[in-house]
Amino acid sequence: MFDLKKIKTPLMAAGLIALPSMAFAQDGAAPTLADMGYILNTLLMLVAGILVMFMAVGFSMFEAGFVRSKNVAMQLVKNIGLLMTASILFYLVGHRLMRPEGYWLIEGILGGFGTAAIDPVDFDGVAAATSHSNSADFLFQMMFCAATASIVSGAMAERMKLWPFMAFIAVLTAIIYPIQASWSWGGGFLYETFGFYDLAGSTVVHSVGGWAALAGAAVLGPRIGRFRDGLVVPMPASNLTLAALGAFLLWVGWFGFNAGSLGSLDSAEDVANLSRIIVNTNLAAAGGALAAMVFTQVRFGSVDLTLVLNGMLAGLVAVTADPLSPSPIAAALIGAVGGCIVVIAIPLFDRFQIDDVVGAVPVHLFAGIWGTIAVAFSNPDATIGGQLAGVLIVGAFVFGASLFLWSLLAATIGIRVSEDVEEEGLDIAELGLEAYPDFAVVRES
Amino acid sequence: MFDLKKIKTPLMAAGLIALPSMAFAQDGAAPTLADMGYILNTLLMLVAGILVMFMAVGFSMFEAGFVRSKNVAMQLVKNIGLLMTASILFYLVGHRLMRPEGYWLIEGILGGFGTAAIDPVDFDGVAAATSHSNSADFLFQMMFCAATASIVSGAMAERMKLWPFMAFIAVLTAIIYPIQASWSWGGGFLYETFGFYDLAGSTVVHSVGGWAALAGAAVLGPRIGRFRDGLVVPMPASNLTLAALGAFLLWVGWFGFNAGSLGSLDSAEDVANLSRIIVNTNLAAAGGALAAMVFTQVRFGSVDLTLVLNGMLAGLVAVTADPLSPSPIAAALIGAVGGCIVVIAIPLFDRFQIDDVVGAVPVHLFAGIWGTIAVAFSNPDATIGGQLAGVLIVGAFVFGASLFLWSLLAATIGIRVSEDVEEEGLDIAELGLEAYPDFAVVRES
Amino acid sequence: MFDLKKIKTPLMAAGLIALPSMAFAQDGAAPTLADMGYILNTLLMLVAGILVMFMAVGFSMFEAGFVRSKNVAMQLVKNIGLLMTASILFYLVGHRLMRPEGYWLIEGILGGFGTAAIDPVDFDGVAAATSHSNSADFLFQMMFCAATASIVSGAMAERMKLWPFMAFIAVLTAIIYPIQASWSWGGGFLYETFGFYDLAGSTVVHSVGGWAALAGAAVLGPRIGRFRDGLVVPMPASNLTLAALGAFLLWVGWFGFNAGSLGSLDSAEDVANLSRIIVNTNLAAAGGALAAMVFTQVRFGSVDLTLVLNGMLAGLVAVTADPLSPSPIAAALIGAVGGCIVVIAIPLFDRFQIDDVVGAVPVHLFAGIWGTIAVAFSNPDATIGGQLAGVLIVGAFVFGASLFLWSLLAATIGIRVSEDVEEEGLDIAELGLEAYPDFAVVRES
Repeated sequence: MFDLKKIKTPLMAAGLIALPSMAFAQDGAAPTLADMGYILNTLLMLVAGILVMFMAVGFSMFEAGFVRSKNVAMQLVKNIGLLMTASILFYLVGHRLMRPEGYWLIEGILGGFGTAAIDPVDFDGVAAATSHSNSADFLFQMMFCAATASIVSGAMAERMKLWPFMAFIAVLTAIIYPIQASWSWGGGFLYETFGFYDLAGSTVVHSVGGWAALAGAAVLGPRIGRFRDGLVVPMPASNLTLAALGAFLLWVGWFGFNAGSLGSLDSAEDVANLSRIIVNTNLAAAGGALAAMVFTQVRFGSVDLTLVLNGMLAGLVAVTADPLSPSPIAAALIGAVGGCIVVIAIPLFDRFQIDDVVGAVPVHLFAGIWGTIAVAFSNPDATIGGQLAGVLIVGAFVFGASLFLWSLLAATIGIRVSEDVEEEGLDIAELGLEAYPDFAVVRES
Repeated sequence: MFDLKKIKTPLMAAGLIALPSMAFAQDGAAPTLADMGYILNTLLMLVAGILVMFMAVGFSMFEAGFVRSKNVAMQLVKNIGLLMTASILFYLVGHRLMRPEGYWLIEGILGGFGTAAIDPVDFDGVAAATSHSNSADFLFQMMFCAATASIVSGAMAERMKLWPFMAFIAVLTAIIYPIQASWSWGGGFLYETFGFYDLAGSTVVHSVGGWAALAGAAVLGPRIGRFRDGLVVPMPASNLTLAALGAFLLWVGWFGFNAGSLGSLDSAEDVANLSRIIVNTNLAAAGGALAAMVFTQVRFGSVDLTLVLNGMLAGLVAVTADPLSPSPIAAALIGAVGGCIVVIAIPLFDRFQIDDVVGAVPVHLFAGIWGTIAVAFSNPDATIGGQLAGVLIVGAFVFGASLFLWSLLAATIGIRVSEDVEEEGLDIAELGLEAYPDFAVVRES
Repeated sequence: MFDLKKIKTPLMAAGLIALPSMAFAQDGAAPTLADMGYILNTLLMLVAGILVMFMAVGFSMFEAGFVRSKNVAMQLVKNIGLLMTASILFYLVGHRLMRPEGYWLIEGILGGFGTAAIDPVDFDGVAAATSHSNSADFLFQMMFCAATASIVSGAMAERMKLWPFMAFIAVLTAIIYPIQASWSWGGGFLYETFGFYDLAGSTVVHSVGGWAALAGAAVLGPRIGRFRDGLVVPMPASNLTLAALGAFLLWVGWFGFNAGSLGSLDSAEDVANLSRIIVNTNLAAAGGALAAMVFTQVRFGSVDLTLVLNGMLAGLVAVTADPLSPSPIAAALIGAVGGCIVVIAIPLFDRFQIDDVVGAVPVHLFAGIWGTIAVAFSNPDATIGGQLAGVLIVGAFVFGASLFLWSLLAATIGIRVSEDVEEEGLDIAELGLEAYPDFAVVRES
């Protein structure tokens, strides 16, 4: 049992006090090198997982900044709701579906059911010959699952009902995400058969979120007044400082996202790789932002801040499939292409009258596909065929399952608020409050 | 003395440069396993302490979002003021009062006076046979003390004068908090005699803040117009994105709060416990948010975002007394009960006409008591009697001391702003500025 | 090549599964103590670098909060722009200019040109007898370079064109910053000849940013209407919650800034020093905030929140030159003097009709000079002469180079927006959008 006495510290410093004879290593044995490796491996997952939690904060702020002021509180509720849903359901179901080793129901395709295997109190992982605590792996993987769900909430903002959204997120985080993640990261067929390589999830996380969002936005339809007489009516983001704060927090959190995916930190090689991953991740974000800044200046005659933020995120998405192998310059270029994709795709996307409030599909799906394929050019372990197989199979599964589920929800409980509610804003109509009640509003488009 | 040369790095990478013959471990000796354990133990306190600092940021944003726009700047000043006060006074007085081993003035009840024992430059803790740097312990414990103070500022917002508030915070952080903390965490009588178990402070931090806030709110009285003809007049939070940002930062920072309380990281068992604590902390937050979301939907017909945020925090408060022993499902349930307490208690609390602007007393005091008692059900080291003893003795001391101090301040320098100042808002009247001067205000309730 | 299998975790926990015979340390060899030291040294740089990234977020929010609402989006674009520019150019040019060991073009004065030496995949730094990964050093140093650039953007806000600003930042981050940094931190003449001591950059980072900002503000001229008939017209910060959030994030991030500058974490002495640095850094921030709070109350009759925020930052700037040697009380006093400098200098500065929107010059330059000189009183390795030499030589170089560059830009492409653009606000006029489009604006000064 854990001993509270361990947290007490004698006032030993500065020679001020006669020290009690307190032996080092109160666990009863000196630590070993194996302990040290185990501790560092586990710490990597924990610290990276906590950084990824900043991405959840970032997504929330980003989306709350992009929606109009009348829908801000609802967007916050959805983001809190998805994080709490992912936390609980990934524990109850998702983690074991994703990490089913020895528990496959259908070998390589469908994992087993059960709660995540959290280590008991005082578990000695070294004696059990494991490389790190499974609890830390759960935490880290759960945050990835939550990131996937965050992508969906942004695209479908401002007209989606709360509880059907929560129902979709429940299935996404408990079933859809973990099953496809097991194919790549759980020893499943994409990795074993196709050699599909996606280190931190350009496909497994980002394009999955993008596919689910695309299906949802298609079923849900555009916001009232968004497309009128063939024209696209701008519905400006209500709070760009919040959006920028969100993008910055995503940038910082992404260091954990990509670095934690290394999964091991018990050698000099590991920590050198970790450093390289963080450098490449940073350069890809910079490349994406720079490309979007220059591209919007040249194309539109002025810099578009919302596209710069999305370009930065697209750069991060693109490098995520392999942040280790590329040279730093290649990483910046991979990011820059991601940034260009966004600048081209967001306006193009409007032509299809699919209304994606924050640009989630171009950022996470399109740049995710690009990044996944780009691995084949920098990493000799990957092939274009294998990468395409991953993109297509994951895409078909997730888009199909999402389309079915959104359609089912739409046909039964309904997924879209009434026109009146949408016009009034979800905050007052559905939640009975306002996000910024003290401030006079000028735009109610 | 510290050697600046240590920070210079040869351009050794990639075989580009002939390497200088630079021996590893420039401290003059190879590191030992004991060094490694000492480093990891100390790093736990430092990294956790920095995460808890994010809680200070979170409290500030949470409270600045909950008050009306005319009192936002004052709320920020108070939060900065309490953090700086805790930093200085916990160094000058608090830490040694709390960690008085060998320095008790009254054995087990009153510690000794003196500044915190910060390790001198180049102190070798391993040679001194200590488990971690006392400086790191100071940093970590100081952040806990600051968190306690943050709870008070929220409850008494919008009508409390600045300098009397600072005076109370000075006594709280220098005297009240450390004395009672020594009873549980400094080897004092609550731990020694009653076996009171409170790993990370459901009682020692959260209910202490709650008691101090309750006493203060009672002496201070409600905001003008808050209770009128037996009705409760809503005074909506002015900025829910800020409140949500604060709650999210509190969630993230809480990982450090609970994990750092483990106090040791030099074995595989430690890091497994650390991981379990973080998983449980996360599930309790999720449980609290889910309970509040479902409960408000069922009870009020719509989700209440402010109660969801407070439910999330209550879940975190509740699991804090013992984030290690419960199973993950038990942790989620402990959090869920915390969330329900808040949904019930915040409206109930209004009936007593005690005006707690952010819901601090229900969240930190009520859920803190619940979490402290719940330990007896999951941890064989704790007893209901011992837990109740801790709750009651700490409560009596802190509530009594706070009531006395608030009353003394009220009777002498006064603690409440004039009616005119309160109506106009503390920002313009007391600080001579506005938090959002560019924006038109519609609500001046 | 990196092995994806390493990221797969067996479901080994809780004895639920028969464990596969999985040997520890899959890298093929057990980790050694040298590995452990190397890992910890590198992690210090990485984690500290990520914390410094929070400073970039903090600067962005701080500045976006201080400018008027009509110039907020442009301030965000500039902050994103400078971070991406620093990321790319410090990789392409800056890092090697700053760390030129063995590559001096002019010994001790001008380093060599080339990209940063990022470690290749699976680089074994222990075998190469280095103390930490050079990639991590790049990341950490790059964040310092970005912090320097952030100082410039704040001072020159609200009337500076975007692209000339970017041009200046490009030269600053690629050339000016690295050259002078090499003199102190790259083995250059300031360190070698003068024994100039500046552990974390009161001069090398903060006063450099301050000098560049001062030159720019002088060339650029004040905002329209700022100085009228010898009077200073206040132009209040539009969003003080944002400004406070930024200041808080700077405070937290500064722990990484100062602690990472220690550069080594492989001994008990190192981690004790690390802890002491963080404690001192925190106390200096508290001292700066307290001094500004008391000083503004006494001098102006009420607390000035913006000066408290700047006082806090000045405290941090002042302790940065040597956060290790001073006693905690000395650190608080060094910070308090910094806070007082700001309260005196910001109003004084207005008399010279130099318009520094956020107070960057008093905070970063004046407090930076104070902190640099203060080292001589606490650190026996430093002399007043050496410290003054550093302040003056760095100042002359950076101010001269900046003045030349700003003047060149002003004389060629122009650096200032037209009066119409300035009156309308840069957001609508230059970027074609608003930061807060839904909100009614009352002040258009």
